[in-house]
Amino acid sequence: MSFSLAVHGGAGPRAPDDDGPGAVAGCLAAMRAGKAVLAAGGSALDAVVEAVRCLEEDERFNAGKGAALTRDGEVALDASVMSGAGRTAGGVALLRTVRNPVVFARAVMERSPHVLLAGEGAEAFAVELGLERVPTGWHVTDRARAQLERWKTQATAGSGGTVGAVARDARGHVAAATSTGGTTGKWRGRIGDSPIPGAGTWADDATGAVSCTGAGEQILRLGLAKTVSELLASGRPAKTAARAALRQLDAQGGTAGLIVVDRRGRLGLVCTTERMACAWVDSRGNEGSRFER
Amino acid sequence: MSFSLAVHGGAGPRAPDDDGPGAVAGCLAAMRAGKAVLAAGGSALDAVVEAVRCLEEDERFNAGKGAALTRDGEVALDASVMSGAGRTAGGVALLRTVRNPVVFARAVMERSPHVLLAGEGAEAFAVELGLERVPTGWHVTDRARAQLERWKTQATAGSGGTVGAVARDARGHVAAATSTGGTTGKWRGRIGDSPIPGAGTWADDATGAVSCTGAGEQILRLGLAKTVSELLASGRPAKTAARAALRQLDAQGGTAGLIVVDRRGRLGLVCTTERMACAWVDSRGNEGSRFER
Repeated sequence: MSFSLAVHGGAGPRAPDDDGPGAVAGCLAAMRAGKAVLAAGGSALDAVVEAVRCLEEDERFNAGKGAALTRDGEVALDASVMSGAGRTAGGVALLRTVRNPVVFARAVMERSPHVLLAGEGAEAFAVELGLERVPTGWHVTDRARAQLERWKTQATAGSGGTVGAVARDARGHVAAATSTGGTTGKWRGRIGDSPIPGAGTWADDATGAVSCTGAGEQILRLGLAKTVSELLASGRPAKTAARAALRQLDAQGGTAGLIVVDRRGRLGLVCTTERMACAWVDSRGNEGSRFER
Repeated sequence: MSFSLAVHGGAGPRAPDDDGPGAVAGCLAAMRAGKAVLAAGGSALDAVVEAVRCLEEDERFNAGKGAALTRDGEVALDASVMSGAGRTAGGVALLRTVRNPVVFARAVMERSPHVLLAGEGAEAFAVELGLERVPTGWHVTDRARAQLERWKTQATAGSGGTVGAVARDARGHVAAATSTGGTTGKWRGRIGDSPIPGAGTWADDATGAVSCTGAGEQILRLGLAKTVSELLASGRPAKTAARAALRQLDAQGGTAGLIVVDRRGRLGLVCTTERMACAWVDSRGNEGSRFER
């Protein structure tokens, strides 16, 4: 039995400052980091956390360093992980000083009695755990500042560079992880779909694993990731389930991108946006990547 | 075409300080407040918000005044509403000074571009809206303090008095609302299922409306309210769908209570806990209430 893995670097409309080759290169690097974990016998959970950690470190993406800014010019980082073995989950939201939100989300899953922790209470737990922290403002890049300035004059939602990963390991376990800075110009205190199990992230060994990116509020209102899982449960393969779920989102006026691995290891990378940066390695060892739909 | 409405005052194990008659009286009062709204031609959304607002005001319940305390002795209030017409949702979390979280959740749904707002950012929006606010500590009761003291010595989870309401109005629209103080002794920053669409609350005119109470982390990991909706979509009536969803929760080791109204107005009030205070009026005008399972 082999493994498979997919990562995404966010979906959205084409933008003047798109760096397609850069986004694809970042996705490929993260995919290979996750693949190395799986090839060494690591779990799907280990692999998705490592892949998303790489994407958080890469400031070309809207997650960790490089995150989109609130209308007050601050970062408020959200992330989650879910393990299909036991269907356990951890989510974190509204972080300012944790270097890698996805690593923290895993710690919330494994080392707290809770599923979702937000804000200062969450950061206090990160301190207790001894997780790597950074000064306020460390995550803020010139590009994110420029996007906020553009948002202020043009009121375009912008960004949409949420990152995520899904994997199935050689033992048949699946996992998913998602991380984001949210939308440029978002209100202070806004939590989107990314840290919420069932909305931005889902994993269940009986069906598969999903990570979403796109119109966060719409994804949250639909419960998009769990919708995909329900469609997988009815026997649809990954790609078909992803497309059917996006049709449901479209019916309520939202666009998004999805990466899915089903319980047999088949991948689906589908979007209804103009672009979704992504990379993958399938269960036969074939690698691929793309930027445009 | 007539209306139907159900409210709950939380589910959990029997406890020494249970006040069954008081909880039933509180549920009946809230149900009648919601019923009055529907009888006067108000919407399902109007009715569930009014019913839950009554329960928040009643300090016998773990929501609004009377909320369970964090391990630091503070309140951190969560609530949500969802309207089945258009499937729009609003949630608020980690509030300290908003008198009625459910009223604020509706405002987030109707007057912000976001679905979920938490913490200080959320409170800042409540100030902008001119919602009624109260001094820090106003929500704290002697009973909640005593429960925290008992939690500290016995480490019993306690409380579980989350409140909620579901309704279907005479035009066939459904809505749900949920409000809670969370679990006694919860960590600062913990967000449970109650403010999350798909987890603690769900409403869709095509299927029905759901409000959950019980093991918050388990409910969030399963996406319990949306699970009920999926079961309703396959044609099961309210009570059957509620029972099937609770079996799924039981399979992962969680107990909970659910109130459901399906798109035809049939009610289901079901729990796998020892008690769930609840009251209802069905589409034939019959009223009822109970405390024990």
